[in-house]
Amino acid sequence: MLMKTLYVSFSLFLLISLTGCHTQNLVRDPNIKAKPVYAIVLHGGAGHIKDLPPKVEQAYKAKINEALEAGYKVLAHGGSALKAVRKTINILEDSPLFNAGKGCVLNSLGKPELDASIMDGQTLNCGAVASVSHIKNPIDAAILVKDSTRHVLLAGKGAELFCKEKGMDLIPASYFITPRRLKQLKNIQAQEAKHETAFLQPALGDIKKYGTVGCVALDQQGNIAAGTSTGGLMNKEYGRIGDSPIIGAGTYADNESCGISCTGIGEYFIRTVAAHSVSDIMKYQHLPLYRAQQKVMFKIQDLGGRGGMIGLDKKGNIAWFFNTTGMFRAFKKSNGEKQIKLYALAKK
Amino acid sequence: MLMKTLYVSFSLFLLISLTGCHTQNLVRDPNIKAKPVYAIVLHGGAGHIKDLPPKVEQAYKAKINEALEAGYKVLAHGGSALKAVRKTINILEDSPLFNAGKGCVLNSLGKPELDASIMDGQTLNCGAVASVSHIKNPIDAAILVKDSTRHVLLAGKGAELFCKEKGMDLIPASYFITPRRLKQLKNIQAQEAKHETAFLQPALGDIKKYGTVGCVALDQQGNIAAGTSTGGLMNKEYGRIGDSPIIGAGTYADNESCGISCTGIGEYFIRTVAAHSVSDIMKYQHLPLYRAQQKVMFKIQDLGGRGGMIGLDKKGNIAWFFNTTGMFRAFKKSNGEKQIKLYALAKK
Repeated sequence: MLMKTLYVSFSLFLLISLTGCHTQNLVRDPNIKAKPVYAIVLHGGAGHIKDLPPKVEQAYKAKINEALEAGYKVLAHGGSALKAVRKTINILEDSPLFNAGKGCVLNSLGKPELDASIMDGQTLNCGAVASVSHIKNPIDAAILVKDSTRHVLLAGKGAELFCKEKGMDLIPASYFITPRRLKQLKNIQAQEAKHETAFLQPALGDIKKYGTVGCVALDQQGNIAAGTSTGGLMNKEYGRIGDSPIIGAGTYADNESCGISCTGIGEYFIRTVAAHSVSDIMKYQHLPLYRAQQKVMFKIQDLGGRGGMIGLDKKGNIAWFFNTTGMFRAFKKSNGEKQIKLYALAKK
Repeated sequence: MLMKTLYVSFSLFLLISLTGCHTQNLVRDPNIKAKPVYAIVLHGGAGHIKDLPPKVEQAYKAKINEALEAGYKVLAHGGSALKAVRKTINILEDSPLFNAGKGCVLNSLGKPELDASIMDGQTLNCGAVASVSHIKNPIDAAILVKDSTRHVLLAGKGAELFCKEKGMDLIPASYFITPRRLKQLKNIQAQEAKHETAFLQPALGDIKKYGTVGCVALDQQGNIAAGTSTGGLMNKEYGRIGDSPIIGAGTYADNESCGISCTGIGEYFIRTVAAHSVSDIMKYQHLPLYRAQQKVMFKIQDLGGRGGMIGLDKKGNIAWFFNTTGMFRAFKKSNGEKQIKLYALAKK
């Protein structure tokens, strides 16, 4: 009896496989177009984000909303994902609330050193700058490198010289420095002085915020773009470059899979080539975005890393993961869905 | 009749699957150990390498052999893959024949700017330096960053300051500059002056050599390490960082898959996250090393990129690919196999 059942099942399976009857009778009217799907997702950094005073919370939410809506508007008007990413990141860079552009953290010498990168998922073209101290919006410099050079990554004074030659204004480093960051640096340096081995430690855990900003967008043409901008780690050694300007680590976009922007202790995202790993897992293991992100974040966690990532795929599906107490994050889709969140768990 | 056959095959298949009879009676004597497999592979850059004068050819072959044997000796004595990679790259850096260390190419201002990276496939620990001008062996600086900081990538003066603090001697930039490279720079700048758009071009084709050096080793403990060291592209813009110091792009090592070092127009290797892609394709598509390398090199070629890569997997299998007229390359395995090659096709 069992054998007979098996035999029947097997024959049925063969029949279905050979005729492909699943799709035989489906007809789709080509004149009825699906509503264009576009979407945008952003982060303002992961880290020790917990129980912020209501006023501070409101300030973050308002600025995140402003940046999200500005990028979304670009997409709604048919603008490119690249333009939307730039617009959103510019607003976050200009706000002293985030560790990017104005108000970025300071290196061990008390100097700002900013990194940024951008990638076009349609062409795989990309641009990045690292360790710049005189460019108001590092993401704009990254776009300039992408569009006007044969290079991907320019660093330090060379990058600034190039931007100046291309007509960008250089600004004094003092523009970026805020009293809040100076105070934070002092506190951290005092704490590190107590631990002589701090230099060898992967990080000082939760006392630091990793307030990088990033944005990923999918436009009406189906193109994905991703960008990241940061001041790096507070009290970093002079010349340290994190994952944010590294294509593959902090930023990656490929129309075939997804766009990703990361935040956290960049070294772990470099070692795991985090953003590119998500893309590869989607491509080669055929896993959905959130599963791919989860796998990579588990790997980072196993190595001792902390941080998070946001991303979207070519269908506009959005996912984010982080292993800190919070991550400033938000998304908006053309179907009306919208979220702005700060903490790991819902408050109340 | 057909149905009966199908039914029998299916039952047989079920039986085999359920009993796992393949391995049931196999016994392996734990006292008989397989000969330890170790191997080393190196490159001295890909590019326009064709019909070199016999004396030059001999000089390259002799230096490549010296570097290969030095690294191999480390492995044969039970030393780590990391030590072998360092030893081999040091010899190539110290030779003015290659575009790494002494005799490296010069940037558009006539200044040397060197990059290097190293990765340990066992721990995924890595270190890198970019745009340094006063460190004799950049791969040593990369190892110092890996071993003595919480960072992966230090750049420019900050990297040099760090090395100095850790006891490394800084040397004058003039050490790196050779008459041959000064002449090459002059020629290229004269050619670029004729093409106003050169700045926007991906590269000037075959008139440039991409003489980066790299090495991948597998030691008797089964650990893989990979390293790359370079002077970058001749006449590059001040501050340009290529793929060599970028973990994932120019260098990657993971005991679970392979170790890779790349050479060529670095921007294409960054955009495709080349070294990491090979590893991911092996892991997730279960392709052998050479097939994974081939896929990535085809992608680079499709984008217009030129260069090559070397690599080995955890079993000591070795593979290399390039799309230029030649690539300085060599390998040696513990089973006695050894090759030293310069051109795409065998001469004679």
